[in-house]
Amino acid sequence: MVNDEKKLGITVKKDENFSEWFTQVCSEQGAKLADVRYGVQGFVVHRPWAFRILREIYGLLENEVEEDNHEPFLFPTVIKEENLQKEKEHAGFAPDVFWVTEAGDKKIEEKVALRPTGETQIYPMYSLWLRSYNDLPFKGYQSRITVFRNEKTTRPFIRGREFMFFETHDVFLTHEEVMDQIKKDLDIAKRVIYDKLKIPFVFFKRPQWDKFKGADATYTPDTLMPDGKRNQLASTHDLGQNFSRAYDIKVKDKEGNDVYVWQTCFGPGVWRIMAALIAIHGDDNGLVLPFSIAPLNIVIVPIVFNDKKAESKDVLKKCKEVKELIKEFKVKIDDSENSPGFKFNEWEMLGVPLRIEIGPNEVKSNEVTLVKRTDKKKIKVKVANLKEEILKQSKVLDNEIKSRADKYFEDNTKSAKTLGELKKIIEVHRGFVKVPFCSVENEGEKCADIIKEETSGGYVCGTKFPEEDRAKSETCIVCRKKANHIVYIAKSY
Amino acid sequence: MVNDEKKLGITVKKDENFSEWFTQVCSEQGAKLADVRYGVQGFVVHRPWAFRILREIYGLLENEVEEDNHEPFLFPTVIKEENLQKEKEHAGFAPDVFWVTEAGDKKIEEKVALRPTGETQIYPMYSLWLRSYNDLPFKGYQSRITVFRNEKTTRPFIRGREFMFFETHDVFLTHEEVMDQIKKDLDIAKRVIYDKLKIPFVFFKRPQWDKFKGADATYTPDTLMPDGKRNQLASTHDLGQNFSRAYDIKVKDKEGNDVYVWQTCFGPGVWRIMAALIAIHGDDNGLVLPFSIAPLNIVIVPIVFNDKKAESKDVLKKCKEVKELIKEFKVKIDDSENSPGFKFNEWEMLGVPLRIEIGPNEVKSNEVTLVKRTDKKKIKVKVANLKEEILKQSKVLDNEIKSRADKYFEDNTKSAKTLGELKKIIEVHRGFVKVPFCSVENEGEKCADIIKEETSGGYVCGTKFPEEDRAKSETCIVCRKKANHIVYIAKSY
Repeated sequence: MVNDEKKLGITVKKDENFSEWFTQVCSEQGAKLADVRYGVQGFVVHRPWAFRILREIYGLLENEVEEDNHEPFLFPTVIKEENLQKEKEHAGFAPDVFWVTEAGDKKIEEKVALRPTGETQIYPMYSLWLRSYNDLPFKGYQSRITVFRNEKTTRPFIRGREFMFFETHDVFLTHEEVMDQIKKDLDIAKRVIYDKLKIPFVFFKRPQWDKFKGADATYTPDTLMPDGKRNQLASTHDLGQNFSRAYDIKVKDKEGNDVYVWQTCFGPGVWRIMAALIAIHGDDNGLVLPFSIAPLNIVIVPIVFNDKKAESKDVLKKCKEVKELIKEFKVKIDDSENSPGFKFNEWEMLGVPLRIEIGPNEVKSNEVTLVKRTDKKKIKVKVANLKEEILKQSKVLDNEIKSRADKYFEDNTKSAKTLGELKKIIEVHRGFVKVPFCSVENEGEKCADIIKEETSGGYVCGTKFPEEDRAKSETCIVCRKKANHIVYIAKSY
Repeated sequence: MVNDEKKLGITVKKDENFSEWFTQVCSEQGAKLADVRYGVQGFVVHRPWAFRILREIYGLLENEVEEDNHEPFLFPTVIKEENLQKEKEHAGFAPDVFWVTEAGDKKIEEKVALRPTGETQIYPMYSLWLRSYNDLPFKGYQSRITVFRNEKTTRPFIRGREFMFFETHDVFLTHEEVMDQIKKDLDIAKRVIYDKLKIPFVFFKRPQWDKFKGADATYTPDTLMPDGKRNQLASTHDLGQNFSRAYDIKVKDKEGNDVYVWQTCFGPGVWRIMAALIAIHGDDNGLVLPFSIAPLNIVIVPIVFNDKKAESKDVLKKCKEVKELIKEFKVKIDDSENSPGFKFNEWEMLGVPLRIEIGPNEVKSNEVTLVKRTDKKKIKVKVANLKEEILKQSKVLDNEIKSRADKYFEDNTKSAKTLGELKKIIEVHRGFVKVPFCSVENEGEKCADIIKEETSGGYVCGTKFPEEDRAKSETCIVCRKKANHIVYIAKSY
């Protein structure tokens, strides 16, 4: 039944060649998510279906941080050089920064940077805005923006020279409040990424040698992609007073003394979350989207044929009635000229959770056929029971998506007690390996480097946060000194 | 009652010095809308209150264009040079374009432009995406983006080097559909700008010499600012086949022939609309916002005093009860430490439409005091009737805002029959002057130039669209040839 003129389709299996599968799903022959033919490397066009999904993700994050009293603002796309360089650790971004140097055919007086992230643009303003303990806590965020980094290799939703960004920047009077906020940020990540998007992850506290430059500590939820590589979905940083000292953000406390403030920032990686959503839930027919995040919950496909006009008219009328009946959901009737089979393929490719088929038989019996994206089982449903059945099947579908993702994640989290065991597991195994490890302070970096070398790129992700219980007698798999931690090892993007 | 520590306030009257009034309303001493202290000329920080209002405006526009079947997408911030220069007329933007030329400390291979507008980035992709008449009409838009132009003089919401943007880009098989779409775009402008935001305007068809470069014709809703200057709020362009020929956007028609497509684009000027909203409705105490667009509909101010703790507790309890009762609106209790008088000033400055005052007397009588931002009249309302009264007063308030704006607009639209009369009116009068005029084709430009010179900057805005009736016998106020049109003259930003 496929319309040959416009055949869509992925020509590889996700399990056999994940990398090519991902490229195809994103492309013209797949779900048309990102167009890499824009002509500037690392800068992609976000096509409507991708943009709508991303907008849903942004919406979830915006609701959460506004519930937590964050105010939205918008800063310029450019940063002046002096501010970008002020925080020394942070200046580490400089090699990857794009510079605007000309206007028309003239050099501009002072070149400006395309922002690589928000700290160095936002904190100079905080030092103007915040005056007194009364102004704290101050919680601001910007959403639906992009940032720029001159990455060598680029890939839609995984690494770009321009990519989508979301960032909160919070200011407190005490470090205790910073730690409370970090817990709140992690809860937000869990509610959005796991509860809504069904993407499982582990919260890590990064080792000291791999924290965000300029932070005292970095916390991240990391998931596993189908190729077994770690994908960092967000980060939240304990910035201590590093930036408040660099940018002179001081307030008067209750006693009238000038004190430096304490800061956090939280950055869900919107692109990386999108990559996980595509990769983890998708299958050989395309995207698979949880019900609540799908730009379209339900597509209604009329089963009509060009040579049966009268019959077709009744079918279309029924489709409209049904759409009206279930208008509380996001529903569309696909009444295009394509064949039903073509439509099935197309909407499956886009991951629309439920499909309703209505043909002449359904009109007669006042039933419809309901099909779930996950298992494609067809269920006959009386129109009178449809709304209820949709609610039921949407939950079943979400649970199927969640269980499958959880199972993959659990199956691919293993343990090793020796370096030899780790090497053996990581060669055949995709995912996390938990190992006893000496130290996550800077002195542990030597052992991490040895792991990296011995396992061709195994990366010490850090300790689970909050930290897991462990046997006190264990020793580090590298140096055999006392193991103070269990750390997770995985290969990374 | 004003808290001296944090005194807010505008020190000039809008009628006496509009320019300074506008600057103050936007600034720290006013409604804290845009911060010009960012350190890069023409690049401002959109602070939370402004951002929330702008987000409401974007939301209205997004709903309207999606109702009209536009799909959202997002294009990169940069454009490659070759594409920017391809459409000759359009290359007129070049003197104002910012160029990214370096990454880290190295020159990049091919410099890229910060987009001045979307045509030259979007249409090359349309030439890849659109293949057949079946793909048409194609309607896409991008929202909540910014664009960049190296303007000499800059001012928040009026002219910036980076400013907020919204653009639709539609593709049709015929010019007839283009004209239908232009009417739809103008309807959208009316529903958002006039019906919701209460900003009156005239639709103009621009004279040929002043249309958008690259368009066959340009249509714009223009309003009048309080200083009598014209403010263009949006534009919609009949692009004809100019861009489809430059960017090779062709489809197969039903007969299988390759044909160039017909295009429109519609760009509500989100910043300019914001400027009009601030300027036209605002008064000497700050912003005045229509009910539906206000980020906060109602603020509840507890009238409590530090020395009366028990009483204060009852008042706060009542405030919470009332808030719960009217939670269908956007409501906030201001329970900060500031004095009631300080709070009144602050929320009036922000333009919150309604204020509810609750003090010990109100607790006893189970009443509240309701205050409208427009006239500050105090109304006692029984709590049981509050919801109903809010609905009523919100309509009264919106009507007051609308009537005041309409009256200003009408009072400042006059007519002249001779150049002398025009000069006399425009010297003392702020606003539009309607005059008989020879031609809006290119041959009319000479007369327009004379008007500009004789009136120190009077600008021929164009003809009202659709065109008004006029006396057939009239002659052009400049050349005294037959007047084929009534055109509007005004000074401009």
